[in-house]
Amino acid sequence: MELLKNRIRTDGLVLNDSLLKVDSFLNHQLDPQLMFKMGEEFARRFSGEAITRILTIEASGIAVAIMAGLVMQVPVVFARKKKSAVTTDDLYCTKVYSFTKKESNDIIVDKKFLAANDRVLIIDDFLANGEAALGLANIVQQAGAAVAGIGIVIEKSFQPGASKLKAAGFRVESLARIAAFSGGQVQFVPEV
Amino acid sequence: MELLKNRIRTDGLVLNDSLLKVDSFLNHQLDPQLMFKMGEEFARRFSGEAITRILTIEASGIAVAIMAGLVMQVPVVFARKKKSAVTTDDLYCTKVYSFTKKESNDIIVDKKFLAANDRVLIIDDFLANGEAALGLANIVQQAGAAVAGIGIVIEKSFQPGASKLKAAGFRVESLARIAAFSGGQVQFVPEV
Repeated sequence: MELLKNRIRTDGLVLNDSLLKVDSFLNHQLDPQLMFKMGEEFARRFSGEAITRILTIEASGIAVAIMAGLVMQVPVVFARKKKSAVTTDDLYCTKVYSFTKKESNDIIVDKKFLAANDRVLIIDDFLANGEAALGLANIVQQAGAAVAGIGIVIEKSFQPGASKLKAAGFRVESLARIAAFSGGQVQFVPEV
Repeated sequence: MELLKNRIRTDGLVLNDSLLKVDSFLNHQLDPQLMFKMGEEFARRFSGEAITRILTIEASGIAVAIMAGLVMQVPVVFARKKKSAVTTDDLYCTKVYSFTKKESNDIIVDKKFLAANDRVLIIDDFLANGEAALGLANIVQQAGAAVAGIGIVIEKSFQPGASKLKAAGFRVESLARIAAFSGGQVQFVPEV
């Protein structure tokens, strides 16, 4: 998505050879117009998938997921992170390891908000090692529902997440795919 | 806002005499169409205030704030919660006590994302004791910016938050104002 890639070029800060800071429009300050256009783009890419619900994870996934839900006219559920969840019969729960924070969190979703006949679009802001997306997919599968696709804002294609998700059989659509950070510059994966 | 009040009547769950569960459309599962209409309503109510930025707090405030930002065409910043923040010269920080969770969190905003000439609309999902809104207002004031108003989705008018904010001189606009929960039913404050 050219609009997003241009924004990353102008406003993204390359911190080191694996970290990109995009807190001026995606993670801390949010650009609502850009978020809406990303929602439209996810709706376009997954238009053939008969999506019934969107699943994301707090907090940075919510803004783009709600825009996709607005365009696709489906409800959005965000998984909550807990240091350690009290597992009950009412909740789906799984463990997600964060390589950035070097800690595990439980993520939980109330069973009321996923049905076995749902076709779920998973949306998240970043894809690096794939742990969050795999955790969300695990929850969808616990519900007996189908993962209709995984929509990512920024994919770090030099890390193993995208390959892991594709190897697991999921369709992954990333709006910007980063091949490398070299010399403080972002190199995108060439579009075919 | 009649649409919201009707949704609270049909889908809200009164848990006890002070707790309302609205996780089917506001806190965990989100209804994007309703969120958009609430964004429009905030834009209408604050249209004379020359808002330049919206400030909310993760996670439940983000969805409605981003919709208000979309309609009003201004950036949205969400404050982050930390158990204990490392204060640096780059961050505004203040402490917020949660009566629900009976714990304090530091909330932080990067100084880059608030300017002294900003007119800030604070948005949050619930107003009960007013601690979160007062914390956000404190951060706006640390930046030397103006609090142009406070927009709340659900105000529990039987708790002291709204009075505290008004006593502090802030304009508060709440889309649904609850007078009491009696017999498991939601009683709204009559509109004048």
